[in-house]
Amino acid sequence: MVRKMIAEFLGTFWLVFGGCGSALFAAGYPELGIGFAGVSLAFGLTVVTMAYGLGHISGAHLNPAVTVGLWVSGRHSGSEVGAYIFAQILGAVASASVLFLVLSGAGDFQIGGFASNGYGELSPGGYSLFSVFLAEALLTFFFLLVILGVTDKFAPKGFAGLTIGLALTLIHLVSIPISNTSVNPARSISQALFAQTDAISQLWVFIVAPILGAVLAAWVYKYLSNIKE
Amino acid sequence: MVRKMIAEFLGTFWLVFGGCGSALFAAGYPELGIGFAGVSLAFGLTVVTMAYGLGHISGAHLNPAVTVGLWVSGRHSGSEVGAYIFAQILGAVASASVLFLVLSGAGDFQIGGFASNGYGELSPGGYSLFSVFLAEALLTFFFLLVILGVTDKFAPKGFAGLTIGLALTLIHLVSIPISNTSVNPARSISQALFAQTDAISQLWVFIVAPILGAVLAAWVYKYLSNIKE
Amino acid sequence: MVRKMIAEFLGTFWLVFGGCGSALFAAGYPELGIGFAGVSLAFGLTVVTMAYGLGHISGAHLNPAVTVGLWVSGRHSGSEVGAYIFAQILGAVASASVLFLVLSGAGDFQIGGFASNGYGELSPGGYSLFSVFLAEALLTFFFLLVILGVTDKFAPKGFAGLTIGLALTLIHLVSIPISNTSVNPARSISQALFAQTDAISQLWVFIVAPILGAVLAAWVYKYLSNIKE
Amino acid sequence: MVRKMIAEFLGTFWLVFGGCGSALFAAGYPELGIGFAGVSLAFGLTVVTMAYGLGHISGAHLNPAVTVGLWVSGRHSGSEVGAYIFAQILGAVASASVLFLVLSGAGDFQIGGFASNGYGELSPGGYSLFSVFLAEALLTFFFLLVILGVTDKFAPKGFAGLTIGLALTLIHLVSIPISNTSVNPARSISQALFAQTDAISQLWVFIVAPILGAVLAAWVYKYLSNIKE
Repeated sequence: MVRKMIAEFLGTFWLVFGGCGSALFAAGYPELGIGFAGVSLAFGLTVVTMAYGLGHISGAHLNPAVTVGLWVSGRHSGSEVGAYIFAQILGAVASASVLFLVLSGAGDFQIGGFASNGYGELSPGGYSLFSVFLAEALLTFFFLLVILGVTDKFAPKGFAGLTIGLALTLIHLVSIPISNTSVNPARSISQALFAQTDAISQLWVFIVAPILGAVLAAWVYKYLSNIKE
Repeated sequence: MVRKMIAEFLGTFWLVFGGCGSALFAAGYPELGIGFAGVSLAFGLTVVTMAYGLGHISGAHLNPAVTVGLWVSGRHSGSEVGAYIFAQILGAVASASVLFLVLSGAGDFQIGGFASNGYGELSPGGYSLFSVFLAEALLTFFFLLVILGVTDKFAPKGFAGLTIGLALTLIHLVSIPISNTSVNPARSISQALFAQTDAISQLWVFIVAPILGAVLAAWVYKYLSNIKE
Repeated sequence: MVRKMIAEFLGTFWLVFGGCGSALFAAGYPELGIGFAGVSLAFGLTVVTMAYGLGHISGAHLNPAVTVGLWVSGRHSGSEVGAYIFAQILGAVASASVLFLVLSGAGDFQIGGFASNGYGELSPGGYSLFSVFLAEALLTFFFLLVILGVTDKFAPKGFAGLTIGLALTLIHLVSIPISNTSVNPARSISQALFAQTDAISQLWVFIVAPILGAVLAAWVYKYLSNIKE
Repeated sequence: MVRKMIAEFLGTFWLVFGGCGSALFAAGYPELGIGFAGVSLAFGLTVVTMAYGLGHISGAHLNPAVTVGLWVSGRHSGSEVGAYIFAQILGAVASASVLFLVLSGAGDFQIGGFASNGYGELSPGGYSLFSVFLAEALLTFFFLLVILGVTDKFAPKGFAGLTIGLALTLIHLVSIPISNTSVNPARSISQALFAQTDAISQLWVFIVAPILGAVLAAWVYKYLSNIKE
């Protein structure tokens, strides 16, 4: 259990450092910046690298919504859910702290939104609460559907880590302008803590919507697996 | 059969939500937008994620032209063709409805073309009907050729889903400026229904050309497989 | 042999249509264009899709330099070299013809360089003949080194097609500004035939340099394989 | 041993030519340039192609920090460390020489920083020494963690080369604006030798920080592997 918690801590640290870090350091760099497409790729690759690198230790959830979804679908032990989520949030917050340290040495240091998630005025494209909630729940629903599908015993072996990471890239390609893309409560919590905006008052959306989507996916996938014909 | 239809419904929903969604929400975002390259990647990743996630349930066609091509080549039962296409179109239309809902909450809401396909004035680069028809038929021809090849028993195991998805990415990299890229009648139908342009009157092109290309590929691949020497 | 020639014809058609097509149609599209990075990805994906799709038929060389390199290294029968190269050039020229047809229906039709290769004034970045020759020979040398390595019996199984395609992407990421990137005489011949520039007078460089690089790689890899310790 | 040294020489040559070459030739090309995202992809693909192409010969370290990290973690023989690092630095310097030759034939030849690494005024985004050191050590720490994880006997077979290369892409997506990204002393040495800036006086950072991160990762991974529960 200690091993798994360290792996989830390190993995979620990496997800936040790679994903939010690419957004903070590199997305808007003049002319040569990586834009939303580069950030999307970065988020996905944090999952690819940790899924193959530490997946054999903890399963590399890196995300409380994933842990809850796997638990509801019967793929993960309920007794570990609390510890996993604790380690994930701790890793995310530790990572945001180091991001803050590195960023504070930048030539033009500004915290701003610190890659946090939001709706309304805090949405990059000014999307409403309704749009943001719907998008976050729906995207997490499909994220979990993919996770449950590719780790099914009938799926091709070995490709799960790559597919799950690329699913996260796809989700970001669609929804960074909507909500700055969460689908992961740990990533939202850590960034809201540092943001110099009102992100923290909107945090509930990025906890409730992803977990709702994940639970629905667990039910749908179980239903699909039980249909005889 | 119910399982397969739900899988095709969900998969095509995802293809439209991820592919057309990335175009609607993120392609033209000022400075940081993902552009045509990001949209191309998004379309491809919808197929990668569904091929590995739900491919073991329905084969993850997500496209009437693919279903017809596989049927003509003898790889898919003719008795399922109608149900597959019905589920695909239903999934695409449901997805376009949710895209509309999310988009309606945007700061600068506009429907416009709604990522629909077109020729002439409705082609992004103003390409003629002839150019669009030729490109759509040819690209679907090669799409099916790749699909038939990578699912052949002589091809390396496991890589089919990745290759097919990346083929769709490649097709979009080439042809978004020509026709906004269809190669998939279900995706064209769902977007034309919502577009505030005349896209619906051009819809026949994006049904006829992809299916024609798919049928030709089925014949060519069968011919290739039967040559003895 | 007929099967293999059809496969090389189709595969090289696809390489030129996908690679040069993405350059002609999509690279410079205002604001949303895919740029050199998108073209690099497109070239690589033509190889990925054909390697997994038709590789079990012909090996999917799609490139005279590859065929010569494999022959010199003893991996391919000398009696097939001529037929392979003939099919490749034919496929490339047929593809360029269809590219011309599609492009001629564009709103702002212009042939220009038609994605041909060149040095001096015909180099995108104005690189000298010396720089272009050196880059083309060196990049083809490493391209063949990768091809010979990943198809070696000691390399991990199944990843050859992906690696070879990504090698071509990498080569384009580096050298489009230098020579518009050839490393493939068939691709250079087909585009030079249609270009409204003096590309045809520079064609020898893109035949000699890639083949030279390929032959050197064959020798080096053979030498490496024979060292005992 | 000669075989391994030639493989490390060629592999590191390729890493510098592909990675730094894409930065020098293609990153800032007007309008169509590949930007930091394209350079990130290029660096990663040099590792992907060499890992599958030459990995069966030398392990394809291509990086003194990787060699040291693997040695400390007990995965690589201490007697080979010196020879590996010597071959890597030689390959990097040879590659930088050829990069110089090719670049000298450009229409608008300028050496400038020559893709070297730096802090303060030599950091692309003006990051402080503290930020650069922290980022380089942390990113190399995770790079080695991924390498040690994916080559562990419990990890899925075959995906190591792809994962390690994509980890390097991710690292560049995050940190090009910070330090121009090293995590590899050989790559820093070769570029500093040619740079027309004071890069050479800052070289120690890009030797000490990566190696420190690599050694820490070796310890952490060993600790993780030994925890019983």
